[in-house]
Amino acid sequence: MRKGIDVEDVTAILKEILKKQKKPIPLHEPSFCGREWAYLKDCLDAGWVSYGGQYVAEFEKRLAAYTGVKHAIAVVNGTAALHICLKYAGVKADDEVLLPALTFVATANAVDYCRAVPHFVDSDALSLGIDVKKLKAHLQDIAMLKDDICYNRKTMRPIRAIVAMHTFGHPVDLEPLVEICNEYHIALVEDAAESLGSYYKGKHTGNWGRLSALSFNGNKIVTTGGGGAVLTNEADLAEEIRHVTTTAKLPHKWAYVHDRVGYNYRMPNINAALGCGQIEGIEGFLESKRALAAKYQRAFQAVEGISFFKEPDYGVSNYWLNTLVLDEAYWDERDALLSATHREGILTRPVWTLMNKLPMYCGCPRMDLSIAERLEKAIINIPSSPHLGVDTNED
Amino acid sequence: MRKGIDVEDVTAILKEILKKQKKPIPLHEPSFCGREWAYLKDCLDAGWVSYGGQYVAEFEKRLAAYTGVKHAIAVVNGTAALHICLKYAGVKADDEVLLPALTFVATANAVDYCRAVPHFVDSDALSLGIDVKKLKAHLQDIAMLKDDICYNRKTMRPIRAIVAMHTFGHPVDLEPLVEICNEYHIALVEDAAESLGSYYKGKHTGNWGRLSALSFNGNKIVTTGGGGAVLTNEADLAEEIRHVTTTAKLPHKWAYVHDRVGYNYRMPNINAALGCGQIEGIEGFLESKRALAAKYQRAFQAVEGISFFKEPDYGVSNYWLNTLVLDEAYWDERDALLSATHREGILTRPVWTLMNKLPMYCGCPRMDLSIAERLEKAIINIPSSPHLGVDTNED
Repeated sequence: MRKGIDVEDVTAILKEILKKQKKPIPLHEPSFCGREWAYLKDCLDAGWVSYGGQYVAEFEKRLAAYTGVKHAIAVVNGTAALHICLKYAGVKADDEVLLPALTFVATANAVDYCRAVPHFVDSDALSLGIDVKKLKAHLQDIAMLKDDICYNRKTMRPIRAIVAMHTFGHPVDLEPLVEICNEYHIALVEDAAESLGSYYKGKHTGNWGRLSALSFNGNKIVTTGGGGAVLTNEADLAEEIRHVTTTAKLPHKWAYVHDRVGYNYRMPNINAALGCGQIEGIEGFLESKRALAAKYQRAFQAVEGISFFKEPDYGVSNYWLNTLVLDEAYWDERDALLSATHREGILTRPVWTLMNKLPMYCGCPRMDLSIAERLEKAIINIPSSPHLGVDTNED
Repeated sequence: MRKGIDVEDVTAILKEILKKQKKPIPLHEPSFCGREWAYLKDCLDAGWVSYGGQYVAEFEKRLAAYTGVKHAIAVVNGTAALHICLKYAGVKADDEVLLPALTFVATANAVDYCRAVPHFVDSDALSLGIDVKKLKAHLQDIAMLKDDICYNRKTMRPIRAIVAMHTFGHPVDLEPLVEICNEYHIALVEDAAESLGSYYKGKHTGNWGRLSALSFNGNKIVTTGGGGAVLTNEADLAEEIRHVTTTAKLPHKWAYVHDRVGYNYRMPNINAALGCGQIEGIEGFLESKRALAAKYQRAFQAVEGISFFKEPDYGVSNYWLNTLVLDEAYWDERDALLSATHREGILTRPVWTLMNKLPMYCGCPRMDLSIAERLEKAIINIPSSPHLGVDTNED
């Protein structure tokens, strides 16, 4: 690295902050210090580990209460949640769905599962999510409304939905995005897989989309092993989603009648039991994570050429993955920095490869992606597990 | 019911056999009497509940060892396993897939997920699975080979695969089915969701298909909460399936590159830990289940108008769900019998509604389904949990 600091300096800063930790230090691992074990044991004692158990209903109740969205439907993982969100946002075969090029691949795959086409949008350097202003200009350029349906004038495909992914927990600027969605009759889905515990203007993320997706993968703030949830404020929609994710079986004491092609997408009871234990600890996890983020921020404050990414002014982030952003002069040394930290047992990583660069999505429509291109070269995620912030609280 | 016995008599026989049990008695519930707790606790202690943990690898090893199929890939449920089996059997959009009309809906849904068309086949009253002779006659009637691809002459769609589902654990007559598959160049997939512990001519089911699917739903012989597995003897195929079910991410220390549309289908570690505990007990479960089946068989031996379904001569069944078959004279009273037993807390059920009668599949191609039609009216499943057979062992 050039002017200011070099790879060794950055590695030394991280080593100092994480010095008390057992190596290797993963990017994000869960803590089980609440009633997780008691709830799991209760599942086994009751002999109910599979679908439809009491912990599923309880976990859904707690998710709804925590996020403030009226209905939560617990599913098998975040990918399944996104698939269902898009399906019920009305996405059909040969529609287009707007989504950031800078996202985890599940966002784009969920579009493919609907047999629709991803249409990639640039990111905002202040939120790491969709650049709303640039999106507006793009739609002015390529979109037209006909019979209340938004079409891409170039491909003549309906643009049915947009997925706002809250990158590393930092909320997208939702209000102006909602305005654009209303203007163009595009359904808004929030990919809140990374943003449990993140707020936009005082309200939890997931409250702006007609449907929103959560994830409880092992690397998330709250884990169920594997799991996800669909959030919606509409009671009818929630009921329909419960139905279709339970193989679309009609309720009956014994008859097996299914009224449409359904999915085996519901979360098993044993995973929900773990989730119930985990969510009881979320405030503690968030506090520790924010303490860790603050420590990283202080440590990198005066460092030239590298900055710690801070939550946007309009929101509160869960700081799911803490993020360093390299100045352009240092981009060439990103991989050296990743290597050096890995050698020290500090498991940093770059951001995802942009979706438009993956072989299966490289031919999809997209806008100018210059900011996402820059972020792809500049971002390094650093260890962010809640327990790493516990010592920090005591400093 | 008419001549021989009536609804009260049948209910009385079941009540007598199940008299020591706490009501209501579900059709099939798991027993956790091995090391399930220890393994779950170990997952929490290690902080590894999600994907790629040691219990997943161990569970896969044990499944391969138990079934004798070289490779097992643990996935999120049996439906996902079937989807992947069909995909790698070469099923593509607008292909046809042969499958029994008498099956659980997941078999047909998996075909739909491949964007292919189910083509329904009749069942054999001696196995409750595909009627192989009738299938052969049907193919002689409608199929043609061109460039080593089998086409349905009526629809001109390729018939790419056949799914042999081992109903209630009773093995399909696989050898003549393999012959037909070879003759017509149709890929064989075994839906062994219900047949863990069932053997055909001395070898475990799942060894005849190029790919086979298992299920570990809560109602199965071995449960992981929710879970399934793909079995195959081909190392390359196993590796490819591991890849595509793990979001098709290319192995790399930190880079996120995915080389095709993948799935988030892998089984989490915590579910695999439960599976490791469960599979250690499988011989005991099977012994108890066969003892229970023998007791049911004795009880219904001399009963006129109703027979207990016995495994086909060529195989050994796990008797996953014990089955009564009503003579035609008693079909009208099937629902009265279901009601009467439910009133007593004995949760019997009929077989699934035939797939060709469900609204989403009623327009699909099919052969004459007269045996399946008869079985649909005649079958009643009765409680079959392993622990119900434990007392029976002591009689």
